[in-house]
Amino acid sequence: MKTEFAPLKNDLLLKALKGEKVNRPPVWMMRQAGRYLPEYRKLQSKYSFFERCETPELAAEITMQPIDIIGTDAAILFSDILVVAQALGFDVTIEKGIGPVIHNPVTKVKDIDRITIPDVYDKLHYVMKAIALTRKELNGRVPLIGFAGAPWTIFCYLVEGHGSKTFSGAKKFCFTQPEAAKKLLNIIAETTIAYLNAQVEAGAQALQVFDSWSGLLAPEDFNEFSFPYLKRIVKEVMGVPVILFPKSSWYAFEELGKSGAEGLSIDWTVTPEFARKACGNEITLQGNYDPSHLLSPVTTIKMEVHEMIRRFGVQRYIVNLGHGILPDIPVDHARAFVDAVKSYEEVKTV
Amino acid sequence: MKTEFAPLKNDLLLKALKGEKVNRPPVWMMRQAGRYLPEYRKLQSKYSFFERCETPELAAEITMQPIDIIGTDAAILFSDILVVAQALGFDVTIEKGIGPVIHNPVTKVKDIDRITIPDVYDKLHYVMKAIALTRKELNGRVPLIGFAGAPWTIFCYLVEGHGSKTFSGAKKFCFTQPEAAKKLLNIIAETTIAYLNAQVEAGAQALQVFDSWSGLLAPEDFNEFSFPYLKRIVKEVMGVPVILFPKSSWYAFEELGKSGAEGLSIDWTVTPEFARKACGNEITLQGNYDPSHLLSPVTTIKMEVHEMIRRFGVQRYIVNLGHGILPDIPVDHARAFVDAVKSYEEVKTV
Repeated sequence: MKTEFAPLKNDLLLKALKGEKVNRPPVWMMRQAGRYLPEYRKLQSKYSFFERCETPELAAEITMQPIDIIGTDAAILFSDILVVAQALGFDVTIEKGIGPVIHNPVTKVKDIDRITIPDVYDKLHYVMKAIALTRKELNGRVPLIGFAGAPWTIFCYLVEGHGSKTFSGAKKFCFTQPEAAKKLLNIIAETTIAYLNAQVEAGAQALQVFDSWSGLLAPEDFNEFSFPYLKRIVKEVMGVPVILFPKSSWYAFEELGKSGAEGLSIDWTVTPEFARKACGNEITLQGNYDPSHLLSPVTTIKMEVHEMIRRFGVQRYIVNLGHGILPDIPVDHARAFVDAVKSYEEVKTV
Repeated sequence: MKTEFAPLKNDLLLKALKGEKVNRPPVWMMRQAGRYLPEYRKLQSKYSFFERCETPELAAEITMQPIDIIGTDAAILFSDILVVAQALGFDVTIEKGIGPVIHNPVTKVKDIDRITIPDVYDKLHYVMKAIALTRKELNGRVPLIGFAGAPWTIFCYLVEGHGSKTFSGAKKFCFTQPEAAKKLLNIIAETTIAYLNAQVEAGAQALQVFDSWSGLLAPEDFNEFSFPYLKRIVKEVMGVPVILFPKSSWYAFEELGKSGAEGLSIDWTVTPEFARKACGNEITLQGNYDPSHLLSPVTTIKMEVHEMIRRFGVQRYIVNLGHGILPDIPVDHARAFVDAVKSYEEVKTV
């Protein structure tokens, strides 16, 4: 039985994703719960990264911070895409100056045989607890977004064993052992679907799927090793709208617009006009302010955000960055970004 | 007075850049003189990076290696884009595990006042000597390509001080001090133009301009901080065809097609059909095999190269990778890439 939560007061995000009429677009920021906030850095100094993810009270507190401090129209659960790798039996740590490291990566076809689809309720119970707790603390102020990494992006880490500019090791596996690669991608996809459905059951009101490394693939390889698994997720995840973020995969916009996803998050190298034309009108676009532009003066940020909304249009649009917020963004610049969206309505009616 | 060199035997590259009819496209590879060759690694273990750049005999030897070993249709001078930074008075070193570091970066507007346009013949004499020496050793076998970094990419290093995923420091400088940024970009552009013209005078038969970080810019920022300087270079460099490589700036293809450059190098996320349609027919396209695909089996490489040529077409096309060759590519895979192009003619006439 699903827990009962307080009714939603600010439903702009869900309306935008359903294509319902809004007076202004909703706004949130990727990585809005993160290092640019002094309140986050305080918890960062006390607890390790995975302690923060695995302790529901900490994850909920971090998730709430940007709602209180900068006033976004949605919360996104504080967690990490690699918890799915952990659930699949991979030993993941975050190494200083390196980033995530998988200590037992897939190096040969036989390594895939040892992987079984986990019970996500068992392995990732803390995520579901954090979602329920955050929903309770949000008390209906804004909707809560759950998320997962896309199968291709998780695959990159499982095979490469760490971050990479090219992920050529992961690509080599695909190009030399395509059937084994697809077997692993299917295992990840199936786990991710179960995980996202569990998030919905726990209280997530929308979902985003991050394909951070899809842009490293040529269009044909995207169609073979990434897109089928995104489509499978969209089809098999039930009950809430799904936003896809296949970063830098502008070349697939036409197909992505017909993928069945409610939303598509786009990076800042795409103009609003290109994105809308390529994606069609049946999908909500999300983005795409260059995170580095938040280093501009506050007056510039306001002007640019208004211009961005004018170009994307108010309907079927969610204001966001084109990628995660950078750690060195001043908090008042992040707030100026959010405030600019909230003041757009007034500007329009002048 | 220009030195007299032997007449050119293989003029496929120059013909392709002029739009003249060829029986098959020419082929070369970015970073073809580099770490994947055991012969290069031998010199790498004996001499430091800048020793290799600054010693004309070594630079010429390294430039010749891929001509002898894998048989490309062009040589590209072994050098580095940051020699221009050195000529401008910046202290550049290559640090292990980090990459290039500028020890006296531009951190404030005043730092730009200290920079003067250098005499490139004086500061970079060793490059011109290496070009003349390589031309002599090539003895007309294939043409020699000279190169430089684009002003935006050099600017990124001068301001950021080192490589970066986002170059947000360099961008911040642009967004908060645009006039000072443009002053610096103009200084770099003017130096680069003098440098490229000196390379032509020394014997370079074509030029490539690498804008490795242009893809980090939003379309509007590319138009403000990168493109004007690329256009200035195309206009003011005389005597040989120029290939531009603004990596990942697919959004500017229409304008780039009209930039006056003879060639445009493109990365692998662009389909041949999109590139040709967006760029028009007045520019030679170069690219765009995913460097990671060279990790595929040799038979796959051959098939994919033939398919790539079929899609780009034989005319106004130069076969290349979409970025530099990776250090872990087997030499026989690189050779298979080149051989596949050379055998294309036969396939077509079967």
